[in-house]
Amino acid sequence: MTDFSIRDNDDHAGGRDPADRPAHPADLAATLNRLPPPQALWDLLAQDPDRQAEIFSRLTALTQAELARLMSPTDLAAIFARMDADDRADLFNLLSGDRQQNMADHLSADQRADLLRLASHREGTAGAIMTSDFAVLEPEMTVREALAELRRAAPDRETIYRSYVLDDAGRLIGSIRLHALILADEDTRIGQIMDPSPVSVSTDTDQEEVARLIAHYDILAIPVTDERGRLAGIVTHDDATDAMQAATTEDFQRISTVMPFTQNMREAGIGVLYSRRVVWLALLIFGNLFSGAGIAYFEEMILAYVSLVFFLPLLIDSSGNAGSQSATLMVRALATGDVALADWRRLILRELAVATALGLTLALVVFPIGAMRGGVEIALTVGLTMLIVVIIGSVVGMSLPFLLSRLRLDPATASGPLVTTISDGVGVLIYFSVATAILQG
Amino acid sequence: MTDFSIRDNDDHAGGRDPADRPAHPADLAATLNRLPPPQALWDLLAQDPDRQAEIFSRLTALTQAELARLMSPTDLAAIFARMDADDRADLFNLLSGDRQQNMADHLSADQRADLLRLASHREGTAGAIMTSDFAVLEPEMTVREALAELRRAAPDRETIYRSYVLDDAGRLIGSIRLHALILADEDTRIGQIMDPSPVSVSTDTDQEEVARLIAHYDILAIPVTDERGRLAGIVTHDDATDAMQAATTEDFQRISTVMPFTQNMREAGIGVLYSRRVVWLALLIFGNLFSGAGIAYFEEMILAYVSLVFFLPLLIDSSGNAGSQSATLMVRALATGDVALADWRRLILRELAVATALGLTLALVVFPIGAMRGGVEIALTVGLTMLIVVIIGSVVGMSLPFLLSRLRLDPATASGPLVTTISDGVGVLIYFSVATAILQG
Repeated sequence: MTDFSIRDNDDHAGGRDPADRPAHPADLAATLNRLPPPQALWDLLAQDPDRQAEIFSRLTALTQAELARLMSPTDLAAIFARMDADDRADLFNLLSGDRQQNMADHLSADQRADLLRLASHREGTAGAIMTSDFAVLEPEMTVREALAELRRAAPDRETIYRSYVLDDAGRLIGSIRLHALILADEDTRIGQIMDPSPVSVSTDTDQEEVARLIAHYDILAIPVTDERGRLAGIVTHDDATDAMQAATTEDFQRISTVMPFTQNMREAGIGVLYSRRVVWLALLIFGNLFSGAGIAYFEEMILAYVSLVFFLPLLIDSSGNAGSQSATLMVRALATGDVALADWRRLILRELAVATALGLTLALVVFPIGAMRGGVEIALTVGLTMLIVVIIGSVVGMSLPFLLSRLRLDPATASGPLVTTISDGVGVLIYFSVATAILQG
Repeated sequence: MTDFSIRDNDDHAGGRDPADRPAHPADLAATLNRLPPPQALWDLLAQDPDRQAEIFSRLTALTQAELARLMSPTDLAAIFARMDADDRADLFNLLSGDRQQNMADHLSADQRADLLRLASHREGTAGAIMTSDFAVLEPEMTVREALAELRRAAPDRETIYRSYVLDDAGRLIGSIRLHALILADEDTRIGQIMDPSPVSVSTDTDQEEVARLIAHYDILAIPVTDERGRLAGIVTHDDATDAMQAATTEDFQRISTVMPFTQNMREAGIGVLYSRRVVWLALLIFGNLFSGAGIAYFEEMILAYVSLVFFLPLLIDSSGNAGSQSATLMVRALATGDVALADWRRLILRELAVATALGLTLALVVFPIGAMRGGVEIALTVGLTMLIVVIIGSVVGMSLPFLLSRLRLDPATASGPLVTTISDGVGVLIYFSVATAILQG
């Protein structure tokens, strides 16, 4: 049998005997990603043309770019023409200007227009991951005509599990599942059994939002309409999941003060990693100068009670740790939609309760240590400071993601290290103020 | 039209006019999650029975448990009987013992056996999220017979986009897409056009692995076989995505030293949050005692050069920050499969290069500050320490997730705070050792 689509594809690859059937395109792509490019190219071109396109679509962007550079224009054009519309547009955006021209020349006028349209959407939007490989029906068609149309068009379509129903102007007016077509009477008109006004997004909807909607409604694909309500493409669940995964990876990067980068972690170069990591590390040094200034201000105090320094890392770390816990929990909850901006007021009360319990517990843990090393007054100073800084750290950590979100910044910028640096500065001041009150009071 | 399945469901809910058509079950569920339980129950029971089951399936576990407690056995049984097999098994596991008995009594013997089988699988495994609502075909059937069978069985099946072909012993020998059935000649036998030996997992395969396979092969569902190769269920892409999301949330919790909990962040109680957060905060205090002990050991040094204390938070924080960057990047890369255990050797060299570049940059940033506050010798001490601790922090941060993974522990346990605490201890020793060498050398 022939392969009709990349999605929900054959999970075998031809041949009857499991032992000698060729590897799945996804597995081959994973292998090629790890080979030196010339070797990978050699192995790729040994496959038949349809499989070449399937495998190529599943390579990482870096491998695609490297192989495209090494490949003859003819070989590349053969693959290019066989790729799914959305994957083709992504590859197009990786190519150099003259290569782009060259590839576009190999396509029909229709395909070229479609390619340029798909490739033109801003990164991170529904438009940038939608595909134009969807099946279209008209409301006046009967179920019989619709099935015949799908049989005719299917080999070109990424999914026919849901077809989209358009009016004369190309506006989306309904959709219908293949499931429903199979079960319906053959003479029924599509307009009568379609789902009217399906959930849709626009070309500039954020990809994370698209993924959230697909998960929320448990659908396989979501239609994308242009500013005039015409169907421009669909985003399939697998591409939405990929986009969600990428957004989550970006959140992981941000909460550890790494500026977002899209390269695969295995492939990222030294320059990329350095430049993405150095900025916040350097910025945080300036933040830390406040803690340093606080310490300098209390120099006399330190000289009089040098054992206070012993507890310094412990106190400021505990505050920072409690703060990163809160910040990270909130960053994630905001990203999944479990928590909304409006929940802040309710959550801050709970956070205060939790933080007080945590602070009291940690104060009890450090009190005996303080007593052993410096006596009861030091123990009191350390314990009381612990309570206060854990509460402050937690509240800052919890609130910062909300504040950033409110300011339309990425809440994940509320990284553990940023929260730690803020609560460090506050912590030093509180520590030595409490010490002044208790020890010199 | 009737709703046949929860997955890829109608994205409308009946009615022709968008203005007066009822809300989508997913939207209603989101609303009910936020209402007080008695009010939510009232609104739920106002819906017709099929919609009740659909809405109920989409509520959070906490809301489901609360409503089940408030509901009469008859109302609950009506919903229970209409739920998808996998959702029903999940609900079953939330109920108290006598409620479980009561609900099981309302089912047919077949349904009861199926329920007990689904509900018995260990959390986190494919068995725990698989459903028994799949369509089965025999290899000798013709395409015509197969389509007739699907029309007959479809209303009960969660997905018919792929059917599974079993031999006489119930062993999985192939699968076929609806797509392929529609396009094939009606007299062809299923055995001739099925995809032989499809990718499958076993009931105890880890859910994250299941989700990775579904994403890797771009399939809608993956079959799950028991120890004898018999088809036990399928995991659909949406349930796999949910499992992946839950695993990612767990990673976010771990990397911020919060022990995993599954409650929705909005709903989690004070007791849960306290108990999940306090353990690591307390443990890390003991870790910090090493830093404290290091400081105590160098007390003389501190009294002689008190300006060294000024730079202490800055140096240990920078080391910890660089370390959390590396740790978090690796935790994520290991979770997505971008990086494998075997890559460690190659990546450690890159990390050394990046960390050296970062350390030199940060050393250059602090050198003038050191010079201003304490003169050239202090500047040299601070700059050299910065270089060393950033390299050590990064290497520890990068290696810890690999080490944990190697020991079959969750790599995400390599949290920023843990890395920070480790590199703090080392950092203090290095700082004062360097200071001793330079200032008293």
